[in-house]
Amino acid sequence: MMTFRRKQVVKRLRTFIALAAVPLFLAACGNLGSSSMSSSSGGSGKSGSTQLTGQTTDGDYEGVIKSGHYQTSKSRGVTNSQDSGNTYNLKSFENGMLGVSKKVFSTKKYVFQEGQYLSASTVQNWLDRKSKSNPDGLNPASNGSTSPNKRNPIYIQALEEQDYMTQKDNKLSLSGVTVGIAVNSVDYYKKTQYGATFETKISKAAGEAYAKKAANTVLQRLRKKSALKNVPIVIAVYRQASNDSLVGGTFMAYSNNKAGATSVKSWTPLGEKNYVFPVESGSSSPNSNDESSFTNFKTQVENFFPNLSGVTAQARYDGKNLQGMHVNITVQFYSQTEIISFTQYLQTAAQKYLPSGVPIDITVSSTDGTQSFLARASGAKKFTSHIFNSY
Amino acid sequence: MMTFRRKQVVKRLRTFIALAAVPLFLAACGNLGSSSMSSSSGGSGKSGSTQLTGQTTDGDYEGVIKSGHYQTSKSRGVTNSQDSGNTYNLKSFENGMLGVSKKVFSTKKYVFQEGQYLSASTVQNWLDRKSKSNPDGLNPASNGSTSPNKRNPIYIQALEEQDYMTQKDNKLSLSGVTVGIAVNSVDYYKKTQYGATFETKISKAAGEAYAKKAANTVLQRLRKKSALKNVPIVIAVYRQASNDSLVGGTFMAYSNNKAGATSVKSWTPLGEKNYVFPVESGSSSPNSNDESSFTNFKTQVENFFPNLSGVTAQARYDGKNLQGMHVNITVQFYSQTEIISFTQYLQTAAQKYLPSGVPIDITVSSTDGTQSFLARASGAKKFTSHIFNSY
Repeated sequence: MMTFRRKQVVKRLRTFIALAAVPLFLAACGNLGSSSMSSSSGGSGKSGSTQLTGQTTDGDYEGVIKSGHYQTSKSRGVTNSQDSGNTYNLKSFENGMLGVSKKVFSTKKYVFQEGQYLSASTVQNWLDRKSKSNPDGLNPASNGSTSPNKRNPIYIQALEEQDYMTQKDNKLSLSGVTVGIAVNSVDYYKKTQYGATFETKISKAAGEAYAKKAANTVLQRLRKKSALKNVPIVIAVYRQASNDSLVGGTFMAYSNNKAGATSVKSWTPLGEKNYVFPVESGSSSPNSNDESSFTNFKTQVENFFPNLSGVTAQARYDGKNLQGMHVNITVQFYSQTEIISFTQYLQTAAQKYLPSGVPIDITVSSTDGTQSFLARASGAKKFTSHIFNSY
Repeated sequence: MMTFRRKQVVKRLRTFIALAAVPLFLAACGNLGSSSMSSSSGGSGKSGSTQLTGQTTDGDYEGVIKSGHYQTSKSRGVTNSQDSGNTYNLKSFENGMLGVSKKVFSTKKYVFQEGQYLSASTVQNWLDRKSKSNPDGLNPASNGSTSPNKRNPIYIQALEEQDYMTQKDNKLSLSGVTVGIAVNSVDYYKKTQYGATFETKISKAAGEAYAKKAANTVLQRLRKKSALKNVPIVIAVYRQASNDSLVGGTFMAYSNNKAGATSVKSWTPLGEKNYVFPVESGSSSPNSNDESSFTNFKTQVENFFPNLSGVTAQARYDGKNLQGMHVNITVQFYSQTEIISFTQYLQTAAQKYLPSGVPIDITVSSTDGTQSFLARASGAKKFTSHIFNSY
């Protein structure tokens, strides 16, 4: 099944490369403006000119535009393969990589560039099993067994590179790299191409140990590329959520490897955990106050409209401390005025019932798509709202 | 076909009424708080208590909550039937009714309540053709013809009531009503139940004349209800967009009928028109500068990513003056970092290329749903953005 899925991805990738023809070389950084596009050549797409995307907030990296095109990843689309089961993993993995990077590469000094040093075929080979024809495979060789508990599972499901650049004398140069390694919590496999799906569970400890070992190999391989010999390389290991989860996985640890280092000296553990509210019976979240806050909110909101179909939330914790929530409300609306009134009501109810002091957003959707959303940033006191509209 | 469609609507409506059992009486307004829910009984759903939804901005009406439930429309779901063809008409019609109402009933003084005086069956009868069994039908009796140009078309496709309340001595009382009458620009019909769809076109002049005549009848009927005898009644006539339009229709005129008036004295014409950018070849918009601004924006944005699938906009004009734009961008994303960079880029590009001084929002969607959006309010200088995220 892995092989079948990978083939699809490679096929999709080829189509994309044919369509795109993005210039991938990094030299020839021409007339780089200051930190925003508007002060450079204005997106007119001069050959070789480099621009930045502009920054929405201080907490985000700017991105690199080359000759008017966004500088897409050299391995673009490969890591999407992880996403076939749980659509939350991809966003969670990439956002988490940005989050880990921000601990090392300040958004004030560094510019984000999609990975330019690992090609699609390299990443593909690394993600495949080790075999005679694929000696670089980071996943274990097959031991021939198809039994869930005896086979060698696919540990590493995704590997992604992010580049961090600094500006000097109107040129961008590579000043750091972050590599994310995502390991499965469950490896889903088929014994025959169209057969039933079986599962091999991988414990957190086993997945983490495997990823850390692979991280050493990855670091050594990266150091063989001349451009990557003398830059800091951050490696972060991520555990995928299972396919039935309503939230993505989390990063377990990261290592910051100084310029030139060829083996990982130490790992910094990360205590982030994701929960889904309402919590399943039999489980519990780190803080029962947050749970009851959410339950009160849910009860109020469900009472408001006769046919709400669901109120759930993703909650992120660091240890016992709530870091933020994404609330999703699905609803059947009959009119635009109902959407407006409901959004107004949510603004008051969210303020009153949901935990304070953390960023929260609330998305209201119907079968027609997103209808409205509300957000309260980290330091903000009130929720702002937006109703999706149409003339 | 009309009959068939109507039946479906009525069936849906019945299911809903059974589910909802919303208390629809208006008397017994108990402990009404000030203007926001948080200062009232807190949504705990005391029997008979009335609350308001809270106001997101000064420009919006607050809505009415009864005993913890939103006070839904008595004819809820009926007017949805208009929406079977063009999903933009419903939002446009209801937003437009709010817009017309704001010209007469100030959002500072009045509170919005979904229509409570016209029942679903009344509206249904009024929307049906006049016949022996339905003497109240506002649409013409069938003349027996099924020929597109000889038959009597269905003129009136939707009719909706909105109530405007004022507070005094902790009680809400009805102080105004707005009724919207939507006429077809094209009446879609079938000769046999599952047969092909035929079209009868209705000119703007014919539709408007028919709606204005019906408005007089409606006003007289409303005055027979004791609660509506002595309140101002605004009647607004709307022209539906055709099913192939990428934007909804617009209001043509409204009348503000003083308390007690039983016939419409005068109509105030409305000059609002909707356009879709890019404008179809052969057509033109009221202001070619806006068109070229949009074209420049579209070109820049399409250049940014290798596989954007579409950049379109709905533009609203009053005469020759642009009132606002809703921009829709559909895209195939490969990663969360691409969404972030694209949104940053849009913020700069929109600021640079799109017309200034009018409210604009931009929604970025992929097959997975809404990915991000940007908005600039009427008086604001900069776009704010939000990226839809997941843990």
